[in-house]
Amino acid sequence: MNKFTQFLPILQWGRTYSRAALFNDTVAAVIVTIMLIPQSLAYALLAGLPPEAGIYASIAPIVLYAIFGTSRALAVGPVAVVSLLTASSIAQIADQGTAGYAVAALTLAFLSGVFLVLLGVLRLGFLANFLSHPVIAGFITASGILIGTSQLKHILGVNAQGHTLPEMLMSIFSQLDQINGITVALGTFATAFLFWARGNLKPLMQRLRAGPLVPDLVAKGGPVFAVLATTLAVWAWDLADRGVSIVGDVPQSLPPFTVPGLSTELVGALLMPAILISVIGFVESVSVAQTLAAKKRQRIDPDQELIGLGAANLGAAFSGGFPVTGGFSRSMVNFDAGAETPAAGIFTAMGLAIAAIALTPLVYFLPKATLAATIIVAVLSLVDLSILKKTWIYSRADFVAVATTIFLTLGAGVEVGVASGVAISVVLHLYKTSKPHVAEVGLVPGTQHFRNINRHDVETVSSLVTLRVDESLYFVNARFLEDLIQNRVTEGCAIRDVVLMFSAVNEVDYSALESLEAINARLIDMGVGLHLSEVKGPVMDRLGRSHFLEKMNGDVFLSQFDAWNRLIEAR
Amino acid sequence: MNKFTQFLPILQWGRTYSRAALFNDTVAAVIVTIMLIPQSLAYALLAGLPPEAGIYASIAPIVLYAIFGTSRALAVGPVAVVSLLTASSIAQIADQGTAGYAVAALTLAFLSGVFLVLLGVLRLGFLANFLSHPVIAGFITASGILIGTSQLKHILGVNAQGHTLPEMLMSIFSQLDQINGITVALGTFATAFLFWARGNLKPLMQRLRAGPLVPDLVAKGGPVFAVLATTLAVWAWDLADRGVSIVGDVPQSLPPFTVPGLSTELVGALLMPAILISVIGFVESVSVAQTLAAKKRQRIDPDQELIGLGAANLGAAFSGGFPVTGGFSRSMVNFDAGAETPAAGIFTAMGLAIAAIALTPLVYFLPKATLAATIIVAVLSLVDLSILKKTWIYSRADFVAVATTIFLTLGAGVEVGVASGVAISVVLHLYKTSKPHVAEVGLVPGTQHFRNINRHDVETVSSLVTLRVDESLYFVNARFLEDLIQNRVTEGCAIRDVVLMFSAVNEVDYSALESLEAINARLIDMGVGLHLSEVKGPVMDRLGRSHFLEKMNGDVFLSQFDAWNRLIEAR
Repeated sequence: MNKFTQFLPILQWGRTYSRAALFNDTVAAVIVTIMLIPQSLAYALLAGLPPEAGIYASIAPIVLYAIFGTSRALAVGPVAVVSLLTASSIAQIADQGTAGYAVAALTLAFLSGVFLVLLGVLRLGFLANFLSHPVIAGFITASGILIGTSQLKHILGVNAQGHTLPEMLMSIFSQLDQINGITVALGTFATAFLFWARGNLKPLMQRLRAGPLVPDLVAKGGPVFAVLATTLAVWAWDLADRGVSIVGDVPQSLPPFTVPGLSTELVGALLMPAILISVIGFVESVSVAQTLAAKKRQRIDPDQELIGLGAANLGAAFSGGFPVTGGFSRSMVNFDAGAETPAAGIFTAMGLAIAAIALTPLVYFLPKATLAATIIVAVLSLVDLSILKKTWIYSRADFVAVATTIFLTLGAGVEVGVASGVAISVVLHLYKTSKPHVAEVGLVPGTQHFRNINRHDVETVSSLVTLRVDESLYFVNARFLEDLIQNRVTEGCAIRDVVLMFSAVNEVDYSALESLEAINARLIDMGVGLHLSEVKGPVMDRLGRSHFLEKMNGDVFLSQFDAWNRLIEAR
Repeated sequence: MNKFTQFLPILQWGRTYSRAALFNDTVAAVIVTIMLIPQSLAYALLAGLPPEAGIYASIAPIVLYAIFGTSRALAVGPVAVVSLLTASSIAQIADQGTAGYAVAALTLAFLSGVFLVLLGVLRLGFLANFLSHPVIAGFITASGILIGTSQLKHILGVNAQGHTLPEMLMSIFSQLDQINGITVALGTFATAFLFWARGNLKPLMQRLRAGPLVPDLVAKGGPVFAVLATTLAVWAWDLADRGVSIVGDVPQSLPPFTVPGLSTELVGALLMPAILISVIGFVESVSVAQTLAAKKRQRIDPDQELIGLGAANLGAAFSGGFPVTGGFSRSMVNFDAGAETPAAGIFTAMGLAIAAIALTPLVYFLPKATLAATIIVAVLSLVDLSILKKTWIYSRADFVAVATTIFLTLGAGVEVGVASGVAISVVLHLYKTSKPHVAEVGLVPGTQHFRNINRHDVETVSSLVTLRVDESLYFVNARFLEDLIQNRVTEGCAIRDVVLMFSAVNEVDYSALESLEAINARLIDMGVGLHLSEVKGPVMDRLGRSHFLEKMNGDVFLSQFDAWNRLIEAR
């Protein structure tokens, strides 16, 4: 694989594109297109943008990802969490419905795109690992709850606001007297139908012995039926005149060419949100892509994924969209429908382009309550509070990270929630390593193996103390080791040698080196030898760059068994 | 040791106080008092406060530390770095010389005191370990340069300002035309004399065959001679009328009872600076105390030290002082002069109280240039740029942390410098653990010991891959391991078993557990066994709380040698 095809994965799969793949990709594209039309409108609504922005955000980004991305089945476009983040970022600087709001959305997509491409080119994809699995799980769950709640206002026909759960609930409660009964009826019908359709439509079709593709098509088309039924109801009974909010005029057009705003002020205000959106979007997208790739023994390249998603966001910024990423549900549908290559994405984009030109007048009477129902049913699958129980059983530190992330995301907003989650994960990790587990070990009889004297039945010798330090030595725990050895050595007067077993020490940083020097100096004063055993190659190389090994009052042994034999013989 | 004497160390040493200790402590107190008079005035000047504040800050705090602290020789009071931090924190909210400035200094001491006591009671002293040795070394060096530069204005007799090195230098350059020649002459004389005295006074006295104590007394009194000489010069020749800044009126009084300001606004503005001052002061103090304790095989208790320093700062807050901590130079002098118990501190406080009542009129004509000279000579010993070279040789990551700390402290101020140093140390540590060293190991012939196949001559078997993971598995590196194993296993078709040797794995967090589950699922699909060996007790306990071990496609072996024998036999 040369440099060129590495940066343009399309050159790999495009060269061997077959007729069978063409058929499979086309079928997948039809199914995905049908599913995406209402979903795109709905996510635009969630992001606070006009409905057509959702369609536009699904066209250019899909094509660009198909060219630059490495996943065969990932479907890129607006997704729930990123749309929520978009709305909450822009709310601080512009009002919904204004031109400034739409421009800010373009800027956000542009900044995300630039940031992602930059990370990809610099091969800094590992930074996304700072988000631990529990923090991501907690964040996605809390976001699902926030998104679901934010859509209640459309179902109820009220004008609620707010970006945290308490704000939203308070705002809805204060307007309960303004509820529109017809909107509630439409919204409830749509929600109930979609819930039913999700579980029952496909089996029903299969029982009706429809062909092999029809059940899938019909099942993914559930939202389309809800859209058609409620639109017809609004049109037939003039419900818009009776207070039901409708989508209204949507321009009939291909995605327009747009230019993101790049004033210093706007960029300054949106830079941090853009970084957050990029990282969250990337993490979500990469885990979907890896899950799908593993199913077919394919591989994805995370750094190239950054470039693919970055290109998709730049595409959104210049074609009237807003921030996008690889979505879980749309990718699963694409994969299940048999998509073999990113060409399926290109065909989907074509389908959506046709919809943008030809079908937009049909959604004039579509009630916003139906779109809200689509979102609610979609995001409820994101909510999984079982992560709280799982982490509680496994590790309290992980539990604290999840619980804080969920609590702060709901109570103080998405930015605060995810930032606190990351900070807490890091601090808890450092805390755990600050008081490392240190085992005093002895020889397992009949072997050359050494284990903890408190857990195993082992041989020991009173003149020789062997401490196995179960952590890398670095600034956070350097002083701990000093105190520990001082305490252990002053406690037993027969001690003539201390061996530090370094089998679990993967690093000795400069702070720890200074601590080892201090320990050595003190042991010299006390007439006790200091030895190391099982020091790993990289650690040995590093220690060799200092004067510690020359000054050390003892030897370095290849294995702990060597140390044991030689130090006992010597006495 | 019961709970009561643990919190009141004075009850331990006080009970056995001997006549010999009384004599030694008194001698030490006299020497330290002589040294502290000019030093206290000078550090008050550095903190932007009236000179008497420096004396007051050395009386109550010393006594309180003697009661609550655990170090026998630590001398508490104003120190250079903390005084600098005090000045730069208060500068943002009040002008020097105003009543608000003095009240802010009291508040800063109060908040530091409360924070330190709180950390001590909650036994959170380990938090100070987040400051790595290189970051501290870099910060102290940069602070020394900043402090020295800040005093140049007093030597030159100009009115320079600024809290970063470029600001200070620009400000001084812009006023070079206003230099006062007489001030420069006095300042230069004082600086030169103090430099000479530091190295030459004690040997000179010894050559003159003075008694055993006299050389010490005279040497520590160097600053007193400089003070006397320059004060007399100003008085005799009326230099104050010719533009030389003098100390002026200092009230003749014991420390007054003062109350720190506790308005929400003031506390809000000073909380973060107070935390920073506390942590920096604590780290400096504890390392001095540990160094001195180690010399006499004594121990200090870091958590009790927090309480001692907290009490000292609360004392400063209610007696007209400003933030204090254990100082290196005054503690060394105290220790070298033979102080045996904290009673030496109490006697020093008495000496300073007498000075505050009786001697303050004598410093009316003392030129500020002399105090500046005292500070410059004192802080130059803090400047040690060799840490840059040492860390460069040993570890680039530590070098980056030091260099950034020095650069940002000089260029952007003390708060930014130290905060960046901590942040960079943490991020670099996480980065290092994000791509851990993983060694493929084989059996060292004739032993039961396994080492890296690339570094040692070892036996291997093609159906068995053993990977020794040299890092704890946690969120930052969980995905790395997944990719690594996937790559290694797809590369060799004869592989039938993978053993993960966990001798260096000290933790498996929830993210890593999910990664292990993903690895296991993939290996099951490929018909490859997954085994663990040398899993440590705490890690095994934790894994036992999940379902991973039940689902694992293989066994857990006590030693790698067991795994080797059993898996080879099985084939």
